[in-house]
Amino acid sequence: MTYTPPAAEQRFVLDQVVRIGELVDDSDLVDAIIDGAGAFAAGEYAPLNRIGDEIGARWEDGRVVMPEGFRAAYRAFVESGWGSISAPEAFGGQGLPFSLATVVMEDLGTANMGFSLINMLTPGAIEALVSHGSPELQAGYLPKLVTGEWNGTMNLTEPQAGSDVGALRTSATPAADGSWRIKGTKIFITFGEHDLTDNIVHLVLARTPGAPAGTKGISLFLVPKFRLNPDGTPGEFNDVRCVSIEHKLGIHASPTCTLSFGDHGDCHGWLIGDEMGGMRAMFTMMNNARLNVGLQGVQIAERATQAALAYAQERVQLGRPIVEHPDVRRMLMRMRALTQGARALIYYAAGQVDRAHLGDAAAKARLDLLTPLAKAWGTDVGCEVASLGVQVHGGMGFVEETGAAQHYRDIRIAPIYEGTNGIQAADLVNRKLPMQGGEVLASLLADIRAEAEDEAALMDLVDRVEAVARWMLGNEATAEDRLAGSYPLLTMLSVAVAGWLLARQSRAAAGDTPFEQMKRAVARFFLHRIVPEAAGLAASARGGAGELYAVSAEVLAA
Amino acid sequence: MTYTPPAAEQRFVLDQVVRIGELVDDSDLVDAIIDGAGAFAAGEYAPLNRIGDEIGARWEDGRVVMPEGFRAAYRAFVESGWGSISAPEAFGGQGLPFSLATVVMEDLGTANMGFSLINMLTPGAIEALVSHGSPELQAGYLPKLVTGEWNGTMNLTEPQAGSDVGALRTSATPAADGSWRIKGTKIFITFGEHDLTDNIVHLVLARTPGAPAGTKGISLFLVPKFRLNPDGTPGEFNDVRCVSIEHKLGIHASPTCTLSFGDHGDCHGWLIGDEMGGMRAMFTMMNNARLNVGLQGVQIAERATQAALAYAQERVQLGRPIVEHPDVRRMLMRMRALTQGARALIYYAAGQVDRAHLGDAAAKARLDLLTPLAKAWGTDVGCEVASLGVQVHGGMGFVEETGAAQHYRDIRIAPIYEGTNGIQAADLVNRKLPMQGGEVLASLLADIRAEAEDEAALMDLVDRVEAVARWMLGNEATAEDRLAGSYPLLTMLSVAVAGWLLARQSRAAAGDTPFEQMKRAVARFFLHRIVPEAAGLAASARGGAGELYAVSAEVLAA
Repeated sequence: MTYTPPAAEQRFVLDQVVRIGELVDDSDLVDAIIDGAGAFAAGEYAPLNRIGDEIGARWEDGRVVMPEGFRAAYRAFVESGWGSISAPEAFGGQGLPFSLATVVMEDLGTANMGFSLINMLTPGAIEALVSHGSPELQAGYLPKLVTGEWNGTMNLTEPQAGSDVGALRTSATPAADGSWRIKGTKIFITFGEHDLTDNIVHLVLARTPGAPAGTKGISLFLVPKFRLNPDGTPGEFNDVRCVSIEHKLGIHASPTCTLSFGDHGDCHGWLIGDEMGGMRAMFTMMNNARLNVGLQGVQIAERATQAALAYAQERVQLGRPIVEHPDVRRMLMRMRALTQGARALIYYAAGQVDRAHLGDAAAKARLDLLTPLAKAWGTDVGCEVASLGVQVHGGMGFVEETGAAQHYRDIRIAPIYEGTNGIQAADLVNRKLPMQGGEVLASLLADIRAEAEDEAALMDLVDRVEAVARWMLGNEATAEDRLAGSYPLLTMLSVAVAGWLLARQSRAAAGDTPFEQMKRAVARFFLHRIVPEAAGLAASARGGAGELYAVSAEVLAA
Repeated sequence: MTYTPPAAEQRFVLDQVVRIGELVDDSDLVDAIIDGAGAFAAGEYAPLNRIGDEIGARWEDGRVVMPEGFRAAYRAFVESGWGSISAPEAFGGQGLPFSLATVVMEDLGTANMGFSLINMLTPGAIEALVSHGSPELQAGYLPKLVTGEWNGTMNLTEPQAGSDVGALRTSATPAADGSWRIKGTKIFITFGEHDLTDNIVHLVLARTPGAPAGTKGISLFLVPKFRLNPDGTPGEFNDVRCVSIEHKLGIHASPTCTLSFGDHGDCHGWLIGDEMGGMRAMFTMMNNARLNVGLQGVQIAERATQAALAYAQERVQLGRPIVEHPDVRRMLMRMRALTQGARALIYYAAGQVDRAHLGDAAAKARLDLLTPLAKAWGTDVGCEVASLGVQVHGGMGFVEETGAAQHYRDIRIAPIYEGTNGIQAADLVNRKLPMQGGEVLASLLADIRAEAEDEAALMDLVDRVEAVARWMLGNEATAEDRLAGSYPLLTMLSVAVAGWLLARQSRAAAGDTPFEQMKRAVARFFLHRIVPEAAGLAASARGGAGELYAVSAEVLAA
C-alpha cells in the first residue's frame, strides 16, 4: 500500500531519454520539481487512494459529493502550483516543458489515479483555448484553468456516438448576444460535476444549424457550469445538470457523469475556433490527453510493482522470501521491465511535444507517430502489470484489503477512454504510417538501428516491423488488411521503441550503483525476453483481413 | 447478459477430442446430459449471477447467509442429480465418465461461476474418500456428498502456509474413541460455511503429534460441521466456526471463509488414509479440482464471448455494427479461438481421466502432464478473454451494469487458487517433464506431429517446445534455469496441444453448416495467429535464471 515516488528513475529518464538538459538550463529546478511533486503526491493524494475507492464520488440529487479529505487535498494542489508547470506564462503558468508536467502527472496518478483525473483534462482545455479561443474567452477562463481553481472537461460521447464522434446530436443555436444555446446529453464525462471547485469549464462538441453530417459538421463550445459575472467570478447557473454518475469497475474517486445541457433552454456556450472546426480544436485537446492516458499505465504499473516487490520480499514460503523463487522473480522483472519500457516511450514522446513547441517539425512528426503507441501500449502495460501484481500477492491479491485488486480494477478503463486502443491502432496504420510516404517511420527505425545495432533480437524486431509497414503501405494490402494487422503492429513497434530507449539507458548506466545495476538488468530482461515475444506478433500483423472475415458475424456466433 | 449453453460445440468436442463414443455406448444419453445440464444451468443458475455479485454471501455473526434464490436453486441442483454424474454407483452416483461431468460443470460455471464453486470441490472430496476413506467414513458421508445434499471443502491454506503447504500448523491429537481432536485456523476456504445444506464435510490437512516438519508430516482428516447421529443425520455441532469471510475482487456469491477448528477443544476429525499420508490423499482430491479450475477459464471465456458477440452485432458505430470493424472482429475471433482452444485441451484431459480410470497407464501419464497446462493456461485464457470482452464493450464494459466487468473480476481468482499458475509451471518442469525420462512429453509431441504435419506454424512451435524440453532435461540447465523458463514453456506447450486439437476439429468439420464453417475459421485463426505468438516465448523459456538474478531483490527494488 506504500508509494515511493521513483525520483531517481524519473531524473535518469529525463536526462537520457528526454535529454532535458537541452530543454531546461537549470538542472536544480528539474530536481526540485521531481522531488516536490513526488512529496506532494505521496503526502496529499496517496492517503486518499483507499477512501476514494471504497466510498468514492456519490451522486446526491444532481450534486456530486467527493469523500472526506478531497477538498483539502485539491486546495493544496491549487495552492502548490503543481497544475501550472507547463501552462503559458501569459496566463499565469510557469512556461516549463511538458516533459516536467509529465513527471508531476505521473506522481499524482501513481498516488491516486481516480483523483488525478481531475487534473488530467484541464491541460487539454488550456491547450485548446490557447490555440483556438477568442481573447475574451482566454482572459475569462485561462487564468483559473491554469491554477486549477476551475477544472476543464471534455464532452464528446453521447449514447449513440462513442468512437463514432460524427454521430453526435447535441445542438448549438446562435443567440442574439453572440453566444450559442446548447442542448443535448453527454455521457461518460470525467469530473463533469463535483464539489471541489467553484466552477467547471466544459468543452462541448455540438452541431450548429444546417451543419453537414459526420465530423465535418461539428463545432467546439466552451460551456461553463456557472456563467461569469462582469468581474469574472462565477455567476448564474448555466443550465447544465448532472443527471447520474456511473457505477464502475474502478476509479471510483472519479465521477463519470451524464450531463444534460439546456433542459430549460438556458445553457449558454461560446464557440472555440471556427464553426465546423470542432474536430481540429478537439484534437488539440486530445493529443496530449492521449499521452497522459498512456502515462496512467505507467502510474499504475509503478504502484503495482512497488507493492508486489515489497510483498515478495516479506512473504516467506518454502524457506525463502517469494522474491527468490524464480517464477516470482520473473514476474517482478517483467513488471519492472514493462513499466520502465512504457515510461521511456511516453517520456520520449513528451520530449517530442516540447521540441515540437520549439518549432522542430521532425519532432512533431515523430510525436504524431508515437502518440497512438504511447496511449495504447502504455495502457496495455498498465493492465498487464497490475494483473501480475495481483498474481504476486497470491490469494491476498484477490482480497481487496491489499490494494492490488484496486490497481487491477482502476487501470482497466485506460485502454478504453480517450479513444479505445483499437482506435489508436487504426490511427497508427491509417494516418501515421503514411505520413511523408512512410518516411516518419523509416527515420525512427533508422535511429533505432543506428543506436542499438548490437541488440540482435531488437534488430530482428525492427526488421519485422519494417516488413509489415512496407506491406501495409504497398498496393497489395487493402484498407481492411491494414486494420486487421493494426493492433499487433502497434505492439511490435511500441516494444521496439521501448527496447531502443532501454538499451540507451543501459549503456548510460555504466557504473556500479544499485540503481545502475538495476537499470542494466531490467534492460537486458526487456531486450532478451520481451522483445522476442513481440516478434511473434508478425504473423498476425501481416495475416490480412481475409481470415477475420472467413465467416460472417452470424456464423461466427454459431 | 444472456447465456446460451454451447451444446453443439460441447457435443463436437466430446466426439472429436474426447472420442466419447469409446467411453459411452449410448449416444442419446450424451445428448440428454448436454441438453439437460445446459437447460438447468441457464434456467436455475444464470438468473442468480447478478444478485450473487451485487449482494453476495454475507457473514452474520458466524453464519453465512446466501442471497435470495440460492437455496431453491441449490435444492433443484440436488434433486436434478447433476452433481452425481461421475460419482461411483456404489454410493449412489451414476458412474458415468468424468468427461460428461465436465460438461455439467462447464454449464454451471458459465451460468454462475461464484455459485458453482459449491459444486466444484465436492467431487474431489468424493474421490479422496473413495480412494482413501475407511468403510465407515464412506458409508456415513459418501451418499450425501454424491447427491450434493452435503458439500465438501478443502482445507489447506493457513496464514503462513499458502503455496508452502508443509508449513501448516493445524494439529490433530488422538482421542480415546479412535477419532482425533482438531485445532487450528484455515483461511480461504471456499463455501466453508453457508446456509444451503444441512451439513458441510471439511477435508482438513493437519499435523499429528511428533510428525516431522514439512509435507511429510501431514495427515488428512474428515471434519464435519455437525457430527453424525447414530442414524446418520447431522447431530452435534462440531466446534468449527466461520470467524469471517473475505471482501474480494470477484466471485462474491462464493463465501471465502476463515474457519477456526476446535476453539472449545471439541472438534472431532477422522483420519482419511494413512497418518502422514495426507499429501497423497489431498493430491487425489486436487488433481481433478485443477482440471475444474482450468475449466472455469473456459466458463467465463464462453460467457464473455457470447456477451461480446451479441453486443458487437447490435452496437452500430461509423455506419456498421462494430463486429464488422476489423480490430473488433480480431478481438472476437481471438476470444472464440482461445475459448475453444482451452476447451479442447481441458476436455481432452478429462477424457484422459476416464481412460486412466479404465486402466490405461499411458492416458494416466498424459493426464499428469496435461493437468498443470489445463489449470494454468485455461485460467490465463479466461482472464484474457474476459478482458477482451470488456474492451469490445468499450465504455459500457467498464460500467458494472453490462456484466462484462463481473467476468473480468470473477475469473481473476482462477490463476491463483488450487495452486497458483506459477506452481503449475513448476509442477510441469520439475515433476511432469522428467516422467519416464521425458518420454511422456515425447509421445505427446509425436502424436501432434503425426496428426498435424501440414500445419507449418504448429510444427515450428512443437520443434521449439522440444528444444526447450531437451535443454531442461539435459545437464546444462540448473533447477533454477528450469523454473525460470517454466511459465513460458507451459504456455508454449498448452498452445501446441490446443492447436493440435483444433486442427483435428477443423478437419472433422468438413461440411457447410454454419457451425462447421465457424469451426474451420476459428481453427485457422488459432493456428495462423496464436500459435506463432507462442513461438515467440522460446527465448524466455530457454533464457535461464541468470538474467533473473543478475541483481539482488533489494537492488531490483532500487
